[in-house]
Parts: sequence; structure tokens; C-alpha cells
Amino acid sequence: MTGRGAVDCELCREDGGELVLRTPAWRLVHVRDAAYPGFFRVIWNDHVAEFTDLQPAQRSQCMQAVAKVEQVLRETLRPDKINLAALGNMVPHLHWHVVARFAWDPHFPQPIWAAAQRAPDLAAIEALQPALTSALQRLSHLSE
Amino acid sequence: MTGRGAVDCELCREDGGELVLRTPAWRLVHVRDAAYPGFFRVIWNDHVAEFTDLQPAQRSQCMQAVAKVEQVLRETLRPDKINLAALGNMVPHLHWHVVARFAWDPHFPQPIWAAAQRAPDLAAIEALQPALTSALQRLSHLSE
Repeated sequence: MTGRGAVDCELCREDGGELVLRTPAWRLVHVRDAAYPGFFRVIWNDHVAEFTDLQPAQRSQCMQAVAKVEQVLRETLRPDKINLAALGNMVPHLHWHVVARFAWDPHFPQPIWAAAQRAPDLAAIEALQPALTSALQRLSHLSE
Repeated sequence: MTGRGAVDCELCREDGGELVLRTPAWRLVHVRDAAYPGFFRVIWNDHVAEFTDLQPAQRSQCMQAVAKVEQVLRETLRPDKINLAALGNMVPHLHWHVVARFAWDPHFPQPIWAAAQRAPDLAAIEALQPALTSALQRLSHLSE
């Protein structure tokens, strides 16, 4: 249980990815997706479904976290674009996808949820590893 | 030209949908998508690509707008979920998709960018029209 939550909710039961940082209100996880090394999620710890289920100060706190993650990913990974999304149709527990997108990634310029356009570029992913290590180090030290 | 912008950017040249409300900093448009009557976009007027290209106060202003739109859609359309996304891979001018999702819509519970799972439910869409009229009326009177 990672926050006041719903018993059947996987984001109440589990971290929801490789835990990078936990703060009292939210946590940051690295998504285990070999094709998307720069795919992270900011997960609100308490179980709320919608962004507007948060109070205004909480929304601000949540988006400051999202912005900090975006900023670190831009500075370290130098992506072609950042994608932000709070969907939650299948897991209605507020989580923000923060995805570093690259022109060589499998779906670019389509959303990552569309049909893949190409295979993962293993050489490009490998070349990104030092920057990803730097990103993870910086992200693990974000303050709330 | 709808803001200080890039000459070749369609969101600098055009409203980007059916204009519902324009404020000095952002505008709200209703997306012309027959299958998604509750699909809106909050578009930042000036040409910036990423959320973190905004100053912190602007980010707050932007997300307050997104939250107000979400709240009106929740209260009027009673969707099963709200989806929020800032992608911009193809049009890198900051815009937030705010989408009222329904269990009967073509892609639910998948993102709207995934493969469709069913045809639009024309009866459900028709039944939503009075609530949509109410939503549009309230959204056109949002204050910044």
C-alpha cells in the first residue's frame, strides 16, 4: 500500500514501475519499457481518479513535480519532444506519463499508444545510456 | 495569427478547432470529431513547444485553465474518465487535449490514439447533445 487507497487498485498496491523517488504526496517511477528509456510516471500517492479530484494546491504540487521531471529529461536526454499525459482509463489512479520522445523511437511522431511505425533503434537506445544514468541520478534527488 | 508565433505553425495561423473562448494567454477550442463530442483543446496562444518553456506562473495559469475545462466536462457530460495530454510531436505548439471519455466510445479503455475497438455509438452521442450544449455554454463563459 503506497498511499490511502483502493484495495483493488494496482497503483495503491504497487509502486507502478522502478521507484526513482518517493515524496509524501507523489512518487516517480521509471517505466520498464526497453523501447522507451526516457519513460517515467509521476504517481499521486493517494487514490484519486481525476486531476480535479485534487485540491488546487495539490494540483500545483503535482504539476510542479511533472515540470521538474520534464526539465531534467530535457537537459539530460535532449529529446525531440516531451509527451505528458494523464489518462487512467484502465487504472483510474492519478498518474502522469512523462515521456522523452525521439525521432527514431518506434512511434514518432505518433503517440506511443498508436501503431508502431518502426522497430526500436537499439544503437540509439544504447547511446542514450550515459545520459539516462545522469537523468536517473538527478531525478532521484529532486526535492518536493 | 493568434499569438506571437512561428510562421509555419498551424496553431499560430489558425484557431485549431471551433473557438469556444479566447483569453489573452490561452484559448479553448472544441475539436471537430464526431466520435468524440467531449473533445476540447486548451491552446497556449504564444508559440512555445514544451510545458517547461512556460514560466512557473504561466504553467499554473495554463493548468488552471485545463482544470476548469475538466471540471465543466465532468459536471455536464458525466464521463467515465477524463484524459489529459500535451503531446505536440506533429504540431510542437503547446496544446492540452482534454477529452471526456465514455465506456461506449470507439477506443475505451484504450487511449484515443490507439486502434479503434468499436464503431461510434451514434445513439449515445445523440443523447449527449443537451449536456454538450450546456457544456459549451458554460465553457464559453469561463474566466481566466
